[in-house]
Amino acid sequence: MTEARRFALTPGEPAGIGPDLCLLLARAAQPHALVAIASRQLLAERATQLGLDIALLAVGPGAWPDAPAPAGSLYVWDTPLAAAVVAGQLDPRNAAYVLETLLRAGNGCVNGDFAGMITAPVHKGVINEAGIPFSGHTEFLAELTHTEQVVMMLATRGLRVALVTTHLPLRAVADAITAARLERVTRILHADLQDKFGIASPRILVCGLNPHAGEGGHLGREEIDIIAPTLARLRAEGLELIGPLPADTLFTPKHLEHCDAVLAMYHDQGLPVLKYKGFGAAVNVTLGLPIVRTSVDHGTALDLAGSGRVDTGSLQVALETAYQMTAGSRQAV
Amino acid sequence: MTEARRFALTPGEPAGIGPDLCLLLARAAQPHALVAIASRQLLAERATQLGLDIALLAVGPGAWPDAPAPAGSLYVWDTPLAAAVVAGQLDPRNAAYVLETLLRAGNGCVNGDFAGMITAPVHKGVINEAGIPFSGHTEFLAELTHTEQVVMMLATRGLRVALVTTHLPLRAVADAITAARLERVTRILHADLQDKFGIASPRILVCGLNPHAGEGGHLGREEIDIIAPTLARLRAEGLELIGPLPADTLFTPKHLEHCDAVLAMYHDQGLPVLKYKGFGAAVNVTLGLPIVRTSVDHGTALDLAGSGRVDTGSLQVALETAYQMTAGSRQAV
Repeated sequence: MTEARRFALTPGEPAGIGPDLCLLLARAAQPHALVAIASRQLLAERATQLGLDIALLAVGPGAWPDAPAPAGSLYVWDTPLAAAVVAGQLDPRNAAYVLETLLRAGNGCVNGDFAGMITAPVHKGVINEAGIPFSGHTEFLAELTHTEQVVMMLATRGLRVALVTTHLPLRAVADAITAARLERVTRILHADLQDKFGIASPRILVCGLNPHAGEGGHLGREEIDIIAPTLARLRAEGLELIGPLPADTLFTPKHLEHCDAVLAMYHDQGLPVLKYKGFGAAVNVTLGLPIVRTSVDHGTALDLAGSGRVDTGSLQVALETAYQMTAGSRQAV
Repeated sequence: MTEARRFALTPGEPAGIGPDLCLLLARAAQPHALVAIASRQLLAERATQLGLDIALLAVGPGAWPDAPAPAGSLYVWDTPLAAAVVAGQLDPRNAAYVLETLLRAGNGCVNGDFAGMITAPVHKGVINEAGIPFSGHTEFLAELTHTEQVVMMLATRGLRVALVTTHLPLRAVADAITAARLERVTRILHADLQDKFGIASPRILVCGLNPHAGEGGHLGREEIDIIAPTLARLRAEGLELIGPLPADTLFTPKHLEHCDAVLAMYHDQGLPVLKYKGFGAAVNVTLGLPIVRTSVDHGTALDLAGSGRVDTGSLQVALETAYQMTAGSRQAV
C-alpha cells in the first residue's frame, strides 16, 4: 500500500515563473497532497493571465487536506503579499513575503505537517536589496534546522551528482578540499542514499580534484595527500567508494552503470554533465538536512513569467524525487 | 572532385593497442592513402596474434603510394624496433623507436609527403624511463615545428571543446587564465576553425572560469577583470564570441545548436561533457600547428593489446577529422 503524504510547495519569487509552474502543474492530479504556500491573490491573478482555470482550495494549520487535490485544483495556504505583483518586475517590498513562505514550509516539515518541501526559485538579489541577508534556500534551511553541513546534489533520471564544494571561486576550491570536509560530505551522501533513497549499499564514484586525478602526482598532489587516504579510511568502515577517478573518463557508461552517485570535487566538474544529460528535467536535492527538500534546477526566468512558455519538467522531477525520498516515511495525511 | 591525399598513421607504443587498431582498421579500405609508420615485424606478429590477414605493403621516401590501399592491406614505412615486443609489456629499449616514428610523421607533414598525421597513444612513462624527456605528442610536435602556442581541442560528432589551459593542477588554473593566453588561444581556435574546418564565421561559446561565470563578481572576479574585456577586444575585430557563460548551463541544446566550438577554461570543465557525449568516438586535435595532427582520445590500454577486444571508434573519428581538416588542401598523392 502506498500511503498518501502531504508536501509543501513554495512558488518562490512572485514575479518569476514559480507561480506559473505551480498552476500549470495543478492541471493534473498529483499522487500526494501538495500545499502551495503563497498568496492566493497572486495565484488567482497569474492563473487569469495564463488563461488557466485552477480552483484554489484554502488550507492551513488545523485544516490540512487528507487526500491529493483533484485535477484542476491546488491547495493554497494563503500567505499575504506586501505589494501587488507584476509578472517580470522584482519588488523588494515582497522579499519578506518570500521568506515567510520558506519559513512556513520549513517549520511545517520540522513539525510534521509536511513530509517534505519542494521549492521553486527565489531571487537572491532582490531579497538582499530589501536589506535581508540571504544567500539561498539551502543556507536558510540549514540555519532553520541547526544543520552544520549540508550537501548539494543534483539528480536527473539515471544520474546523481553531489558536490564537495559548491559556490566558491575556482581559485578557492583546492584549499577547500580538506580531509575533514571530504569525510563529512561523503558520510552525508552515503547516509542519505541509504536513508532517503533506500539504497542499502550505495556505490559512490569519487572524482579526483586535478585533471587525470593528478596522474600519480604529476598534476597535483591532493589525490595522494588528501582524497585517497580519506576514501581509504571510510572504506575501512564499509563505505563503497570508487576513486579518485579522472572526471573526464568517469562520466562514461562503463563507470556510471554500476554506481548510485558521483561525488565531484567542485561545481563545474560535476554539473555540466548532469545538466547536459538532464536539461529541463534535473532536480536539486539538499542532503544532510533533517527534512526533505528538493528544488527545481533553474532560475526565476523573469522574462517568461506570465507567458505560459515555461516547462514544468524540472518541477515534476523535483516532486517525483521528494516522493521517492519519503517513500519509507509513515506520515499519514 | 575529391582529391586523394596521403596521411601518416603512427601506432605509438608498440606494446599497447595502437598496432592492433591500425590492423583492425586495415580490414576496410580508406578514402585516402594511409601510411603506418611502424615496425613491419611488429605489425606482422600482432596480426598473427589477432588472427588477422592483412597484407603489409612496403612504402617509404621515394616510393610513396598514389592511391588508397585496398581493403585487407596496409602501407607500412618500416621503422625498426630495438627489441622484440611482447604485447602488454613496456620496454624502455623501444622508446627511441617510438620517437623515431613521430619524427618521421612530423617531418613528413612539414615537407609535404603527408597531408596530416593521426596518432595512436604513446606511453610517456616508459619514454621518460628510458632517459628521454618527453611530455606528450603535442609538445613534441610544437617543438618540431617551432610553434609557441598550441591549443588542445577534443571533438566528437556534434561537439568541439577547446581548452585555454590543459594539464595543470587545479590550484594553478586561475593564475594561468591571463588576458594574453586567452587571446592567443581564442585567436588560434578562431583561425583554425576557419582554415582547417572551413567555417567562414565561427561562433565560439566561451565558459567563465568560476561557477555561474562568477555571478556578477560574487563568485570570483576573473570574468569581469580578464575574460569579458578580452572577449570584447576580440569581438571588436569581428570574432563571434558568446560569453563568458556558466559552464553548467552552456552545454545545453539551446546554446550548442548554434555554435561551432566551446572554449573551456580548463580540462575538467570541458572534457567530462565531451567524453560523456562522445565516448568511444572522440578525437583529440592539436590546433595552432602548421601541420594537421589528430589523435585518439584514449590511452595505450596495455592489458588489451593483442586481445582483439578493442574499439576502433576513436581512431575512425581521428581519421575522419584529419580528412575533413585537409579537405581544402590540394596535396596530390
